Amino acid sequence: MGPIKYKARLNVDLGEGYGNLKCGPDADLLPLIDIANVACGFHSGDPLIMQETVRQCKAHKVLVGAHPGLPDLQGFGRREMKLSSEELTAITVYQVGALKGFLDMEGVQLNHVKPHGVLYGMMCRDYEVARAVMRGIPKGVPVFGLAGTNMEKAAIDLGVDFCAEMYGDVKYNADGMLVIDRIKKPWKLEDVEKHVLQQLTTESVTAVDGTTVHLPVKDYPISICCHSDSPGCLDIIQKTRSLCDRFNSEHPYLIDHW
Amino acid sequence: MGPIKYKARLNVDLGEGYGNLKCGPDADLLPLIDIANVACGFHSGDPLIMQETVRQCKAHKVLVGAHPGLPDLQGFGRREMKLSSEELTAITVYQVGALKGFLDMEGVQLNHVKPHGVLYGMMCRDYEVARAVMRGIPKGVPVFGLAGTNMEKAAIDLGVDFCAEMYGDVKYNADGMLVIDRIKKPWKLEDVEKHVLQQLTTESVTAVDGTTVHLPVKDYPISICCHSDSPGCLDIIQKTRSLCDRFNSEHPYLIDHW
Amino acid sequence: MGPIKYKARLNVDLGEGYGNLKCGPDADLLPLIDIANVACGFHSGDPLIMQETVRQCKAHKVLVGAHPGLPDLQGFGRREMKLSSEELTAITVYQVGALKGFLDMEGVQLNHVKPHGVLYGMMCRDYEVARAVMRGIPKGVPVFGLAGTNMEKAAIDLGVDFCAEMYGDVKYNADGMLVIDRIKKPWKLEDVEKHVLQQLTTESVTAVDGTTVHLPVKDYPISICCHSDSPGCLDIIQKTRSLCDRFNSEHPYLIDHW
Amino acid sequence: MGPIKYKARLNVDLGEGYGNLKCGPDADLLPLIDIANVACGFHSGDPLIMQETVRQCKAHKVLVGAHPGLPDLQGFGRREMKLSSEELTAITVYQVGALKGFLDMEGVQLNHVKPHGVLYGMMCRDYEVARAVMRGIPKGVPVFGLAGTNMEKAAIDLGVDFCAEMYGDVKYNADGMLVIDRIKKPWKLEDVEKHVLQQLTTESVTAVDGTTVHLPVKDYPISICCHSDSPGCLDIIQKTRSLCDRFNSEHPYLIDHW
Repeated sequence: MGPIKYKARLNVDLGEGYGNLKCGPDADLLPLIDIANVACGFHSGDPLIMQETVRQCKAHKVLVGAHPGLPDLQGFGRREMKLSSEELTAITVYQVGALKGFLDMEGVQLNHVKPHGVLYGMMCRDYEVARAVMRGIPKGVPVFGLAGTNMEKAAIDLGVDFCAEMYGDVKYNADGMLVIDRIKKPWKLEDVEKHVLQQLTTESVTAVDGTTVHLPVKDYPISICCHSDSPGCLDIIQKTRSLCDRFNSEHPYLIDHW
Repeated sequence: MGPIKYKARLNVDLGEGYGNLKCGPDADLLPLIDIANVACGFHSGDPLIMQETVRQCKAHKVLVGAHPGLPDLQGFGRREMKLSSEELTAITVYQVGALKGFLDMEGVQLNHVKPHGVLYGMMCRDYEVARAVMRGIPKGVPVFGLAGTNMEKAAIDLGVDFCAEMYGDVKYNADGMLVIDRIKKPWKLEDVEKHVLQQLTTESVTAVDGTTVHLPVKDYPISICCHSDSPGCLDIIQKTRSLCDRFNSEHPYLIDHW
Repeated sequence: MGPIKYKARLNVDLGEGYGNLKCGPDADLLPLIDIANVACGFHSGDPLIMQETVRQCKAHKVLVGAHPGLPDLQGFGRREMKLSSEELTAITVYQVGALKGFLDMEGVQLNHVKPHGVLYGMMCRDYEVARAVMRGIPKGVPVFGLAGTNMEKAAIDLGVDFCAEMYGDVKYNADGMLVIDRIKKPWKLEDVEKHVLQQLTTESVTAVDGTTVHLPVKDYPISICCHSDSPGCLDIIQKTRSLCDRFNSEHPYLIDHW
Repeated sequence: MGPIKYKARLNVDLGEGYGNLKCGPDADLLPLIDIANVACGFHSGDPLIMQETVRQCKAHKVLVGAHPGLPDLQGFGRREMKLSSEELTAITVYQVGALKGFLDMEGVQLNHVKPHGVLYGMMCRDYEVARAVMRGIPKGVPVFGLAGTNMEKAAIDLGVDFCAEMYGDVKYNADGMLVIDRIKKPWKLEDVEKHVLQQLTTESVTAVDGTTVHLPVKDYPISICCHSDSPGCLDIIQKTRSLCDRFNSEHPYLIDHW
């Protein structure tokens, strides 16, 4: 066993629809997850969906974080865009504030901020982007990110609490970065199991080129991220739920962070 | 002299641009006004503009309110739309929350909420619309509205503090409702003067049909609203500024509400 | 048998997604239908979806019409909006032109224009709206609409060819108008069968209040409309397909309009 | 004198507003220009503005081209975005088709396509982007672009007619590429004069680093481009108009291409 100190939690993106168009099976996922990253209207989500998602999370005792994305509904926040630092801060403040409006209304606390899609990837790769986004996070609210990247570095430099993520349904490149597809590819459940367990028990992962990549999660609180728009996401999330539960019960000394 | 108890303040809509497209001469207006209603991105405004507008208001000690509108950038929030009550609440929570994000970042308080354009008009005419929007206003934050309409009634019923507005550059119908044009028409400065003074000193106004309409502002805090997208708005606002100043100095016993 | 002169054809709205968000099972529906109404980006649809939908329609020899809606992606074109006549014409020209771009690229003809959702309903009820939209339809292109309403009247007055629709999955009010829900309700297949056959064989329909309403389809070319966003739409459309086929084979003298 | 064979024409971007928000002084510019590039709704422009702009161009006998941009109203099409080739083609087809709708309605021909802003720059730098956009241009319609870049190369390879542009109010880098600012900087009129005349009379330009860059305009039809959103644009365009007129009258043998 390596340095994991905290129980494994499961975070999933919710509320990623727009108007009549729905994305994932949110109602089925709510009983299975610990933490929701709620879309804030820029890459997906709208006020009505956000209001309902926050209420549902409250009813299911699911922790709620803001999930701000690039201002690109058509591209689902998965088309890279060049924004100035000022803009990156401003779109973060705007989206997090909008979600906080619904949380305040329901008396629920903002648990964290998790940037979405290609914005997350840009933050991993580019320190200035990571700094600019994090300047938009309210004081005292932690950020979810990929350990060992510019997300961690910017969080440390700006005094933002960092929580490390592992990915249940996303592959890694040999440099530890995520392989982002605009449309998610299907996974076999046994591959999900291998992928998740390897990360939880060895703090490393087998990259797409076959090399083993160390995950420098140190003693950060961790959670496994799965997506609600993956094909077969319900099965993947049920599987990951049971893997987290098993891991946590096999390591009873782990701390419950949240 | 009627029941006006509070000093006359001047409120103006600011931040009503989008991206590169600007609307009013905000920089020139900031030194002239007491209170800004800042567009929240639905009828106009974007995160970068909101961020800058909040900073400028803070620098000029201008009070900041949220100015939520219908989700209709193309129509500038001046095309009537049928939204459900749930939606009306949700779009209010979203927009006010987004603006509050920028205010929190700058350590500035949210002074009030003032609905924009045709949403304001719909609230005046329709009690259910007024209730639905007001359910989206954070506890303790006052609403700006037209006294004697469903805005006032819904505010009373829901326990939202009400602040009465008079209009410097908008005409009234005989029923006390405002005449809303999608594009503002020009005003002569002497007409602005007559219009404003009549309202401040007699709590009544001459409607477009020539009848005199009583303004039931009671002992609500009042402010005069002028628009930053009217033709000649800078002159109108300078004129209204000096009218407010004169009125306040001639009535030194008036209470300073804010 | 009444005045139906033309074979019964089946039209369905396709391409009603946005970015990563999909609406109906378009791929399954294409082999079942005669005519597609392709969303043009305002109530749903985006350039990539339109491009692909037009190509698929061509491959399946499905006739393609433009399906312009109100500029309201969030409301799926099902929230009533007040637009000026000039705007109604302009949004029609824009959307039909955009779709025609893809048709020209593929060498496919524009079969018709069918307004979407609440815009269709507004045209039925309001002659000026109907006229304004129809002024935006290119010369020589027919419009799909509800016979006996202002859609028919405006088409006649402006010299636009009119094609009458019957509805497979929408109920009628006693005045012959459609009952439009923002989200479609489920239908039993036997009710679909009764509903469709009644319309095809008697040119009348039982309204929601139980009265029988005459459908003044005269000798207009007709088609049955089903929606791709209804719950159970694939079953409904398969059923309606077979009803049309049976009706056409039982009435071999009917003319093939397209 | 170099190889310029055609009279100098003046092209300007028009219709770059959105809803109530206006950009340039279009009404003042119309009498001064030969060719308009009309915004198509993605980086700016909306159906009502396009309809009116096309009518005004017709009234002023100004040739009309489509001015498609990236789908980014907030960024005015000046924030780089990564789109797939399929998407680049689709957004071109969509926007050009939409404009053609208005032209068809008015009986005006589509003169050309000129990509907007950063999309233009991406085409200059990236051959695949240039190809993808040009695949979306209707057969027989010329493209405006920067000679000596991938725009020219892709046009030749795809058999699209190419028209070369010179820039009256944009500086060049030493590699012949344009210096694109999200917000235009002011120009002195004498600098505009020097800049335009140098290009027209020597087919070269002094880059921002002081080097002289040859403009390989060969015997392509040429036009000078000025922007309607530059500070002082009316003066710049009046100046450029008179420079073009003088140049054309001093070189009477030049061919009138349009």
